[in-house]
Amino acid sequence: MMEEKTLKSEKIYEGKIVTLRVDTVELPDKKHSKREIVEHSGAAAVVPVTKDGKVILVKQYRKPVETVLLEIPAGRLEKDEDPEICARRELAEETGYSTERLEKILDYYTSPGFSDEIIHIYLAKDLEAGKAKPDEDEYLEVIEMPFEELLDRIMKGEIKDSKTAIGILAASRILQERNK
Amino acid sequence: MMEEKTLKSEKIYEGKIVTLRVDTVELPDKKHSKREIVEHSGAAAVVPVTKDGKVILVKQYRKPVETVLLEIPAGRLEKDEDPEICARRELAEETGYSTERLEKILDYYTSPGFSDEIIHIYLAKDLEAGKAKPDEDEYLEVIEMPFEELLDRIMKGEIKDSKTAIGILAASRILQERNK
Repeated sequence: MMEEKTLKSEKIYEGKIVTLRVDTVELPDKKHSKREIVEHSGAAAVVPVTKDGKVILVKQYRKPVETVLLEIPAGRLEKDEDPEICARRELAEETGYSTERLEKILDYYTSPGFSDEIIHIYLAKDLEAGKAKPDEDEYLEVIEMPFEELLDRIMKGEIKDSKTAIGILAASRILQERNK
Repeated sequence: MMEEKTLKSEKIYEGKIVTLRVDTVELPDKKHSKREIVEHSGAAAVVPVTKDGKVILVKQYRKPVETVLLEIPAGRLEKDEDPEICARRELAEETGYSTERLEKILDYYTSPGFSDEIIHIYLAKDLEAGKAKPDEDEYLEVIEMPFEELLDRIMKGEIKDSKTAIGILAASRILQERNK
């Protein structure tokens, strides 16, 4: 029995993206401890692969790490939203591409020690090009990169975003398995 | 030029694990926007592989997601700490295992949209068993799992922690490459 019973829960801040609360918990030995918890609505992301084996990526400035990152298209879930619908919308908004068929790869917790954020990742093939319409405060550049080059750059530690690393590494196994 | 200039930075909460601040930024079109940022000291993690191809994992209750997760050993960086020293310490404290040689796999941002947390992942082989000494408020169970079984469970979405998924997927490519 490793569960931690909540004795008290204090909301510290409710923002647009995150909510911070501090829970007082009872540990298995009955001692008390505090847990700082960042609530997030979760997100959906897409590994979009073109017919000629390129991945569509977005280049985006990320204020928390003060740098421009290359990432697979993704966005936050709206309340009670089906992650697949979110994935489809974000792919279209950020890159203009759409697809008939999305295939779930996996979902994961970004940092379960302090946050409940979960990201659902999908694979998209047979893409159709269209016109992107990013959100008002989103400045994006859409980039294409050959799948194998992206994989190499992840293994070299040059692509540092978790959903992009997990999505591409996992998609690589799936595509490899099918080509056997 | 995608950079966002900080106009104002307001500290909301300074905790033991995270600090929350809200920055007011100037976007490329000169409009203003807010960025909620969760500061974290960063962490180091280890993929520990035994001579007979098993991975040493820790089973741990994670309050933010209210569930027990299987994870590779990891811990938070102390101020200005070398991530490799942190990785070595956490491996020993959580599992009792030590090793002469740690090899850097990669580092990544868990959730760069709202947090600066970075995790450095190492590969450890030639492990020597010893006695674990977890922190006072850490309740851990140490588990061994064959590498291939763990990889299968990640691909099925059953292992949901980001550092564990990235660490094992990337280590698999490194080990596969060497066995060619």
